[in-house]
Amino acid sequence: MSDYKLVFHINENDRWPFTLRSVRNFIRADESHRAVVVANGGAVRSFSQLEADPNRMARIRGLEAEGVDFVVCAVALDERQVKEELIPDYVRVVPAGIVEIAKLQAEGYGYVKA
Amino acid sequence: MSDYKLVFHINENDRWPFTLRSVRNFIRADESHRAVVVANGGAVRSFSQLEADPNRMARIRGLEAEGVDFVVCAVALDERQVKEELIPDYVRVVPAGIVEIAKLQAEGYGYVKA
Amino acid sequence: MSDYKLVFHINENDRWPFTLRSVRNFIRADESHRAVVVANGGAVRSFSQLEADPNRMARIRGLEAEGVDFVVCAVALDERQVKEELIPDYVRVVPAGIVEIAKLQAEGYGYVKA
Repeated sequence: MSDYKLVFHINENDRWPFTLRSVRNFIRADESHRAVVVANGGAVRSFSQLEADPNRMARIRGLEAEGVDFVVCAVALDERQVKEELIPDYVRVVPAGIVEIAKLQAEGYGYVKA
Repeated sequence: MSDYKLVFHINENDRWPFTLRSVRNFIRADESHRAVVVANGGAVRSFSQLEADPNRMARIRGLEAEGVDFVVCAVALDERQVKEELIPDYVRVVPAGIVEIAKLQAEGYGYVKA
Repeated sequence: MSDYKLVFHINENDRWPFTLRSVRNFIRADESHRAVVVANGGAVRSFSQLEADPNRMARIRGLEAEGVDFVVCAVALDERQVKEELIPDYVRVVPAGIVEIAKLQAEGYGYVKA
């Protein structure tokens, strides 16, 4: 048995490169692995700069295509005045990222802070 | 069922604002949620500056009044020469914060690093 | 019952002193406690500087002698061009640190981010 599940928590924008590499290493290690990335705090700023960092968004989209879920906190978007319309449709917006993190752990996911 | 439980771990003093906002978002999302904040490392310095940051202490006290537990590590207080007498009575001092973090997870709490 | 188990995750090299103190506090609190330290990201750089920081390596070796497992991520070593030969034999190299973190949590370990 190695069908491990992890929630990756990112709350600082400069941790995206490390986080995306960790997620990739995790899901490519075994095809049964499941990963969810929950972004809150300052990490949501990447989504206000879609044009500015197309490489990052391409990596996110690529991982999503490999089965990774990306979740963004609506409270954090609101605090930083990032409009929800800017969030790509393959990213899920939830009312509070912190609740999603609690829910996933209650469902048996392990936790990793980027 | 959404009676989620989280231990919020804070070990850097500048993470208090983010941590307190996360805790507030979590407990206000559902009244059955339970939160414990464990402060160790540099995060205990806030308690040596009670007069200096009354707003922060008021926020901590307000969350405590809403049912959040605040726990401070005695080892970290000692390392930074913060006297235990400075800790308000609504904050619990434990011998080692790290053991409290382990205990809460063993009891079914999820973990969040601020 | 207080036979708690924790995986300590370190991914930044400057967090070693805090991490090693936390591990020490944890294992000395109760002899039944179990700790595993998983280093990935920038935290593996300490192992490229063995001569440069003998005190740190002595502390790691001392904790290992007290029963703590130290695990280093091969991907992170490769990304930073740290040769595996430099890793002391009391430190275990795994293909992906992130998978080890998931595995330990699936086995009932709590998680702590340094």
